[in-house]
Amino acid sequence: MDLKGLIHEGNDLHDVKKKRLKENEPETTDSDRKKPKNVAITKPELNVLNKPIVHDTTRTVSNFLLHYLVTEPVENIEIEAKLGTLIDVDSQSRFEFPVLSETVLNPEFNLRTRFQSDMPASEHKHFNEFLNSAFRESQRPGRIPIAYKHVKQVDSFYESDYKGHDRIRVTRDQKDNRVLACVMKRRVADLYLYCPNDAFDVRISISDEVPVSMPSEETPPLLTRIKDRVGYQHQDVKIDLTMTIQNDPRYDSTKRHELEVEFSNTIGLRERAIRAKEGVDSSWDRRVQLFLDNIRTLRCENS
Amino acid sequence: MDLKGLIHEGNDLHDVKKKRLKENEPETTDSDRKKPKNVAITKPELNVLNKPIVHDTTRTVSNFLLHYLVTEPVENIEIEAKLGTLIDVDSQSRFEFPVLSETVLNPEFNLRTRFQSDMPASEHKHFNEFLNSAFRESQRPGRIPIAYKHVKQVDSFYESDYKGHDRIRVTRDQKDNRVLACVMKRRVADLYLYCPNDAFDVRISISDEVPVSMPSEETPPLLTRIKDRVGYQHQDVKIDLTMTIQNDPRYDSTKRHELEVEFSNTIGLRERAIRAKEGVDSSWDRRVQLFLDNIRTLRCENS
Repeated sequence: MDLKGLIHEGNDLHDVKKKRLKENEPETTDSDRKKPKNVAITKPELNVLNKPIVHDTTRTVSNFLLHYLVTEPVENIEIEAKLGTLIDVDSQSRFEFPVLSETVLNPEFNLRTRFQSDMPASEHKHFNEFLNSAFRESQRPGRIPIAYKHVKQVDSFYESDYKGHDRIRVTRDQKDNRVLACVMKRRVADLYLYCPNDAFDVRISISDEVPVSMPSEETPPLLTRIKDRVGYQHQDVKIDLTMTIQNDPRYDSTKRHELEVEFSNTIGLRERAIRAKEGVDSSWDRRVQLFLDNIRTLRCENS
Repeated sequence: MDLKGLIHEGNDLHDVKKKRLKENEPETTDSDRKKPKNVAITKPELNVLNKPIVHDTTRTVSNFLLHYLVTEPVENIEIEAKLGTLIDVDSQSRFEFPVLSETVLNPEFNLRTRFQSDMPASEHKHFNEFLNSAFRESQRPGRIPIAYKHVKQVDSFYESDYKGHDRIRVTRDQKDNRVLACVMKRRVADLYLYCPNDAFDVRISISDEVPVSMPSEETPPLLTRIKDRVGYQHQDVKIDLTMTIQNDPRYDSTKRHELEVEFSNTIGLRERAIRAKEGVDSSWDRRVQLFLDNIRTLRCENS
């Protein structure tokens, strides 16, 4: 067999040198691999293009959020992520998937899981200490300080006539019974991050939180929920650690511990999203990254 | 039910204010969430700790590499990643997994897949053009230039007596028949990245490439392979686009197009890995990131 002939026929690799000669650039020998110059004085580069990469999880979450912010916008959008555990409904233990790194589960497949956002009190305490420490660190000069708030509220839930909506929630200040909010929340979509290397998985939820008028004074609430929350805000992200005690007349009272990460300024976020869709705002990806990296910081902290 | 009593009993949320008072720091009111100061003049922060996050895929690949570089070191280690396609062996089409973002598959599970590193000539041509353009861009002042080399070689393969090893490979320069290498390669481990958003999946392979003495002149080769390769080196990463024509006397000659990304300096890499294991080198993660981000740059380029 004529190897020479074969390689000639098969040679479809374009030599960069030929192109450079065509463009009248100075010729360089291609027999020796040229040694990079200025390595010592030049900052290390990110990759061959030296352009930052948007990580795949960020891309996927970004597309999910863009959909509900821009393509089919939800009016009073609330975007929050909860740390929790994906539970296999058959075994009732933590869902196991044959992957070794964080990934977004495809909601179109029925993976027979449920998400449990409650966590043990000990874990909650750990997050509380971690965030208090982060708060103190952030007060140093040159840092963007974390803002902090401790609130105690009571939620009362009422039946809602609107189809597809959750019950009506009236939130009152525990101290003076002042009404802080009266809303009807509708869950629009969920996206799950499976995190095999960490103690927690993540659920990112889109909700429509519509302000409604107060139920009449005669209507008794279906149930009440006492909420003790420490909230930390950093840049456009809120991190809330909440302990609730639910008092449903039909059951024993239940105590729950939750951790959620939320975008604090969804109006500004939507504006950025629209500009990003139009290709004129590159800060959108950084916002999604900020949201996810805060979730990752918390997830890794407790692993 | 005494709600007051319940919340008191259940209150395990530690108020950061109390801690601050204990430490004799100035008191701040906690009734109003404090507004972040200096936002306009301070650089945006990465997260509540303002510390960079090592992404989960990087962490997993890092641990995989550390194992073979440090824990159970492979002597003549070769670390390379090939772009290709994970094929479902049952359907013979691209493997589909119910996830929406890049993830490392767990090799302990039998997912009934095989990896096809061959790609269509048209894709190969596209990568060739992309890399030639990246090469030219990198020659601008201030950049770390990509080094470039076009080689034409012939590999001859011989039977090996060593168990578990591949055949012996003798590589010669196509022009003058000069022997460039004589090695026996043993595949040690593979790790697969499933990339549902991109045109290609990735296989990261660890091999042991042992230099051996030349087979005797009388031994006929089992087969020969003509190799036409354009190689691009940037920092410690090599990107090779290879077109091969395999000439096996038992079959028709086969032409293949491959793209691989490889660590060029595995001795330096092992030193970094050892220092990282000892906790004294933070540049290790950046190296793994560089390797993966080059793979991602290529993967996304052709999606």
